[in-house]
Amino acid sequence: MIYMDHSATTYVRKEVLDAMLPYFTEKFGNASSIYSIGRESKNVVESAREHIAKLLGAKAQEIYFTSGGSESDNWAIKGVARALKNKGNHIITSSIEHHAVLEVCNELEKDGFEVTYLPVDENGLVKVEDVKNAIKDTTILITIMAANNEIGTVEPIAEIGKLAKEKNILFHTDAVQAVGHIPVNVDELNIDLLSASAHKFYGPKGIGILYIRKGTKIANFIRGGAQERNRRAGTENIPSIVGCEKALELAINDMDEENKRLIKLRDKLINGILEKIPYCRLNGDKAHRLPGNVNISFQYIEGESLLLWLDMNEIAASSGSACTSGSLDPSHVLLGIGLPHEIAHGSLRLSLGMENTEEEVDKVLEVLPGIVSKLRDMSPLYENIKKGGK
Amino acid sequence: MIYMDHSATTYVRKEVLDAMLPYFTEKFGNASSIYSIGRESKNVVESAREHIAKLLGAKAQEIYFTSGGSESDNWAIKGVARALKNKGNHIITSSIEHHAVLEVCNELEKDGFEVTYLPVDENGLVKVEDVKNAIKDTTILITIMAANNEIGTVEPIAEIGKLAKEKNILFHTDAVQAVGHIPVNVDELNIDLLSASAHKFYGPKGIGILYIRKGTKIANFIRGGAQERNRRAGTENIPSIVGCEKALELAINDMDEENKRLIKLRDKLINGILEKIPYCRLNGDKAHRLPGNVNISFQYIEGESLLLWLDMNEIAASSGSACTSGSLDPSHVLLGIGLPHEIAHGSLRLSLGMENTEEEVDKVLEVLPGIVSKLRDMSPLYENIKKGGK
Repeated sequence: MIYMDHSATTYVRKEVLDAMLPYFTEKFGNASSIYSIGRESKNVVESAREHIAKLLGAKAQEIYFTSGGSESDNWAIKGVARALKNKGNHIITSSIEHHAVLEVCNELEKDGFEVTYLPVDENGLVKVEDVKNAIKDTTILITIMAANNEIGTVEPIAEIGKLAKEKNILFHTDAVQAVGHIPVNVDELNIDLLSASAHKFYGPKGIGILYIRKGTKIANFIRGGAQERNRRAGTENIPSIVGCEKALELAINDMDEENKRLIKLRDKLINGILEKIPYCRLNGDKAHRLPGNVNISFQYIEGESLLLWLDMNEIAASSGSACTSGSLDPSHVLLGIGLPHEIAHGSLRLSLGMENTEEEVDKVLEVLPGIVSKLRDMSPLYENIKKGGK
Repeated sequence: MIYMDHSATTYVRKEVLDAMLPYFTEKFGNASSIYSIGRESKNVVESAREHIAKLLGAKAQEIYFTSGGSESDNWAIKGVARALKNKGNHIITSSIEHHAVLEVCNELEKDGFEVTYLPVDENGLVKVEDVKNAIKDTTILITIMAANNEIGTVEPIAEIGKLAKEKNILFHTDAVQAVGHIPVNVDELNIDLLSASAHKFYGPKGIGILYIRKGTKIANFIRGGAQERNRRAGTENIPSIVGCEKALELAINDMDEENKRLIKLRDKLINGILEKIPYCRLNGDKAHRLPGNVNISFQYIEGESLLLWLDMNEIAASSGSACTSGSLDPSHVLLGIGLPHEIAHGSLRLSLGMENTEEEVDKVLEVLPGIVSKLRDMSPLYENIKKGGK
């Protein structure tokens, strides 16, 4: 199988699983217990926290473990809203955020908050000027993603962070697609809250990070026991915390070299598709783009049929976010960059990762044109085009 | 090491880890994707859901996967409160619930809800009559735990469920200590919402269950993607879901036989301690008690010193809930059953599990009296007692 859906999820790297294994069966102590195997677990958690903090330019006490990116986004946004509701009720976000951000914003609107959903340009870029103009006296939070999960556009979060800091407004970024893939330093970027998820960088599923800058006012989300310095209840998930640490360490160590390789493969794939197949366009920004992201819209075909044909050819890809599959609505991201419904429907995301090779890219370039052409031959619309009509 | 803190957490059984392993590295597809390894993941999740449902007397579509017991409790209580706030604002619970229930109730009180915290008797039993008397026109939820995590008391949830059903009020039970340990059938017990956690029954940490009876009005808690039939966002944690399923299957298969064994060990331990050591008492109900739970208060000593001495003798135990360690306050459960502060402070929980043997129980009975006696010798209070004073 050629797996090109790394933005949906990655396998766990062997070194990561090996690091996790002892904590399931032998070193299983509850980190909140005071006997030796409990204290050992506590030490492991705290050492992972410190290591992850260092890798993100943070302090250990600013790193909190969650169950994943969605929980981190929910906690960050609802937590700030609850803590600062007496200060203001306005939140700024963009129209192409992940659903874990947008749905929380929708919920907050029902609770009396006001949310500005900024438009993006045709490449998916948020304009810093737009953020600036949207700020009001009542603005308590700006939440803009670091990189888009569908079209791979890397947002200008350094500038947005700088602006937020100047205006003394909290800045959260959903960095689920960025952490482990492109350099992220919370201090350099003036980030106050950051969400990340291990299964996007070859770590286990079910474990995420919320970075909370020291001094940030935020209410708890999952309440109960005193874990995570009284801020996030639930028995510490030691094997997954260890896996998250190891995966992030490896991802950041390998990043420079791996990204050079990925960008070469990505660009070969993009250029190959655009050359070989008529009536298609690249979605997302060319320059500010995740190293592994390819997102192309093909006119006159349906994304889902394309995926099924690719699957029959042992190629795993997606039409957008895995989190929204099952829905028949076209992607809000593709609509957000201005694509008409019928073109948004014919989109394909190929997200490259560690094990992908040039041979695999060649294979996709060999197979894809035939599939697209076959599907178009079944389309009455395309029939008209070929006949010179519209 | 003699591990007697199974109520805090358990190791993952070998069969459970073996079942999980393929899903980290090979069968890692995102369950919301439409290509083959994604569909395979989806099938695995749905088959686990169906199997777990059957084991709890539920329907597959009533089982939701969460990150653990704390999230399940938070979701159940906040979700019902949010969904039914126009119907009423009154919630009934008990004073000895887990913090994940109590802290959420405290938060809801700040948001305008009214919470009745029912007292319990000297053995930790909630009186069904008290629940009945607490019901008002505005009562929207009764949340009473199935079994207490500290003193092992099994609450009369069948009667409470029956009452709630008669009165048409939703009934949630935190069954984190019960599921996998004593029979739990949501239909027979008239439970509308139930929380469970895999790492309490030899499954992995970081995975829990929320049972939601079909038709129950409940708001979402973690919002975002369309996973879990649009009710709980976040990429499905396949290895942990598989581990949860396997662990619950094994626990329920082994339950009858294992509980006979545990009750014998438990009673030997309880009787041995009460016989050999003066000035101590059993906490929790004798008859309605978890098979593995021993909780004893020793006068004139401090629980924490006791734990450290036990640890030096390679015995891992706790003074109460692991979730509250680090706090110097005595357990709210022990205060709730009427113990004075100084006696609550000298309490020990030994929670037995699968690998504990009669030899281990004998070892504890051999070592514990000497430790208690040594600690008491250092206590000025005990000095007075020995001299006949008070």
